[in-house]
Amino acid sequence: MNNFSFYSPTYFVFGKERENEAGALVKRFGGKRVLIHYGGGSVVKSGLLERVKNSLSNADISFVELGGVVPNPRSGLVYKGIELCKKENVDFILAVGGGSAIDSAKAIAIGALYDGDFWDFFSGKKKIDKALPVATILTLTAAGSEGSNGTVITHEDGMLKRSAGSNLIRPVFSILNPELTCTLPPYQTAAGAADMMAHVMERYFTNTKDVEITDRLCEAIMLTIKNETPKALKNPYDYEARANLMWAGTLAHNDICGVGREQDWSSHQIEHELSGLYDVTHGAGLAVIFPAWMKYVVKHDVLRFAQFAVRVWGCEMDFQNPEATAYQGIECFEQFMKSIGMPVRFAEIGAKAEDIPLLVEKLALKSTLGNFVKLTPEDVRKIYELAV
Amino acid sequence: MNNFSFYSPTYFVFGKERENEAGALVKRFGGKRVLIHYGGGSVVKSGLLERVKNSLSNADISFVELGGVVPNPRSGLVYKGIELCKKENVDFILAVGGGSAIDSAKAIAIGALYDGDFWDFFSGKKKIDKALPVATILTLTAAGSEGSNGTVITHEDGMLKRSAGSNLIRPVFSILNPELTCTLPPYQTAAGAADMMAHVMERYFTNTKDVEITDRLCEAIMLTIKNETPKALKNPYDYEARANLMWAGTLAHNDICGVGREQDWSSHQIEHELSGLYDVTHGAGLAVIFPAWMKYVVKHDVLRFAQFAVRVWGCEMDFQNPEATAYQGIECFEQFMKSIGMPVRFAEIGAKAEDIPLLVEKLALKSTLGNFVKLTPEDVRKIYELAV
Repeated sequence: MNNFSFYSPTYFVFGKERENEAGALVKRFGGKRVLIHYGGGSVVKSGLLERVKNSLSNADISFVELGGVVPNPRSGLVYKGIELCKKENVDFILAVGGGSAIDSAKAIAIGALYDGDFWDFFSGKKKIDKALPVATILTLTAAGSEGSNGTVITHEDGMLKRSAGSNLIRPVFSILNPELTCTLPPYQTAAGAADMMAHVMERYFTNTKDVEITDRLCEAIMLTIKNETPKALKNPYDYEARANLMWAGTLAHNDICGVGREQDWSSHQIEHELSGLYDVTHGAGLAVIFPAWMKYVVKHDVLRFAQFAVRVWGCEMDFQNPEATAYQGIECFEQFMKSIGMPVRFAEIGAKAEDIPLLVEKLALKSTLGNFVKLTPEDVRKIYELAV
Repeated sequence: MNNFSFYSPTYFVFGKERENEAGALVKRFGGKRVLIHYGGGSVVKSGLLERVKNSLSNADISFVELGGVVPNPRSGLVYKGIELCKKENVDFILAVGGGSAIDSAKAIAIGALYDGDFWDFFSGKKKIDKALPVATILTLTAAGSEGSNGTVITHEDGMLKRSAGSNLIRPVFSILNPELTCTLPPYQTAAGAADMMAHVMERYFTNTKDVEITDRLCEAIMLTIKNETPKALKNPYDYEARANLMWAGTLAHNDICGVGREQDWSSHQIEHELSGLYDVTHGAGLAVIFPAWMKYVVKHDVLRFAQFAVRVWGCEMDFQNPEATAYQGIECFEQFMKSIGMPVRFAEIGAKAEDIPLLVEKLALKSTLGNFVKLTPEDVRKIYELAV
């Protein structure tokens, strides 16, 4: 097991109606002047935004608001939020929404205390050394940003999708009410499941040996996603299924299932170029890329893929031919994605084979990508081709 | 799933030689005048205490020290530590050792900021509203106190063993170096495994339905303990086995495997009377009590015990007769305890059948005990008898 540090100080407040505690929680964590940051539509229509405002007012906390976050959140709104924070002396940012609203809020939190261009932290020019406190009220089970130290923003100048990370932008509290996810359309529910599954798999396929505890935790979370997603799709108001998925989504990405070993993360980067170019839902893009990546790297460690097949997908181990079991696991994963309505090929998301050279070029690999197998640009091209 | 809050803000610093970061970490978390609190023997002889002192000195942090903690830590030393803290203006407590040193340190941290008798917090008279920050350097994988919000102290007046808890006594950081556990004798290694397993089982046997994610996490940790303990016993210097066990022990008790549902905790209380009266190692006492408790309550939920048997112990489900599978799981657990050298009956720990009335009396049940099955004093008596 590799040396590691694990730090997940977020106060998670989970369950029915808990968004009504927002005001008391902001006060507890020292906020006095809040920016409420959200997308649009459902947060407003459902009355959630109003309830959150009431909760803040009841706790004598003043606020300004900024809506309009879009999926794959953009730099334009981040600049606007930073300006608003500076003008209004905001000292606390409360994201209400899914990963996009939270990531956008984290970027604003970094930029609000910085005189230069916030993009410096995403282009690698600067390291995050301070940020406003961020908290979240989650409405979409997917990205895991409610418990993570990362944020991903797309810059409109060139549609570059880049990430930044620091423990300073881990949410101080996150309110997780599974009821808020019951109105999600099936496609978003499924794309969320694909995203969560991908967060675990990026950590599961590793070259570090003998980290049984982390393996088992990964498998625990993947089994839950596998079993609970179809229930939530069949009956969107199945609270227990929504609750299991919501908590699984947080644990899939607060790094509890990644510690002590090398992680991969190549599929995420390969997908980022897809959603950057075609504006496809991140989870759907991952459902397309992951089976292709798996088929490309399976021979690197057949027994690890066989373990995945047996323990997660319930395949029987073929002791005469472990490779057959390994491929069966990949097939099960791909079939699962199809069964929940996710795309698994380029055409289903409007991506085109002729764009592959452009995708590889935009990825702008300086050396190699990932850790499980270190991929060259040529490898990445072949993975895109397997996804066509 | 029940509503819950989950808060585990401890900064975990895991791996080889990381105790050398103690000074820098104390500084980071604001400590200036430290009480180093420990047991004796091995911490001193191994040179660990010296390394920790050097690390503090190198970070310009002054300290006083108090050794002498014994297993099932006593009130006497807590009183002494509180006095020392007040006299020396200590602002930070660093426990070096296992659960006993940590629990004693937590009790001192509570008492140091209180004018009355610290026992008020253990007898239920007072609620903890402040405490000095506590940090730990763990040398024994067992109690999980390095990541938990609890402490258990035995008062010498009547040998009453009682607990107290608050997020204020969750360690601010915990250094976990598996190498420090490689010199543990087999009995302590095994008793630690029994303790960890018990922490999970107290949370696993629940009446709350449909919390798959928590079930799976419990099973992940139990599988790890089952597989890694024999390796650590066979080769005490197997770093990977020690590392898996150390991290499993922390996760077994920071409540990640308990959220969202009713927990039981009757076996712990039934055991506390055993170790209070006979001063037996806590884990060994649990190895005696748990099989008896299981046999007493199995019929309350046969399928949950069958799940335990199948998923943790690899039993084949007997669909004609699930009760047979349930009993097989209990048998596997008991056999596992025996195989790692743990006692499973009263006589092996010097407990006597004729003391059972005294044990039940000392437990002083006001109403019932536990949640999976609510036990009356008569039930507790029968459980003790099953352990004879």
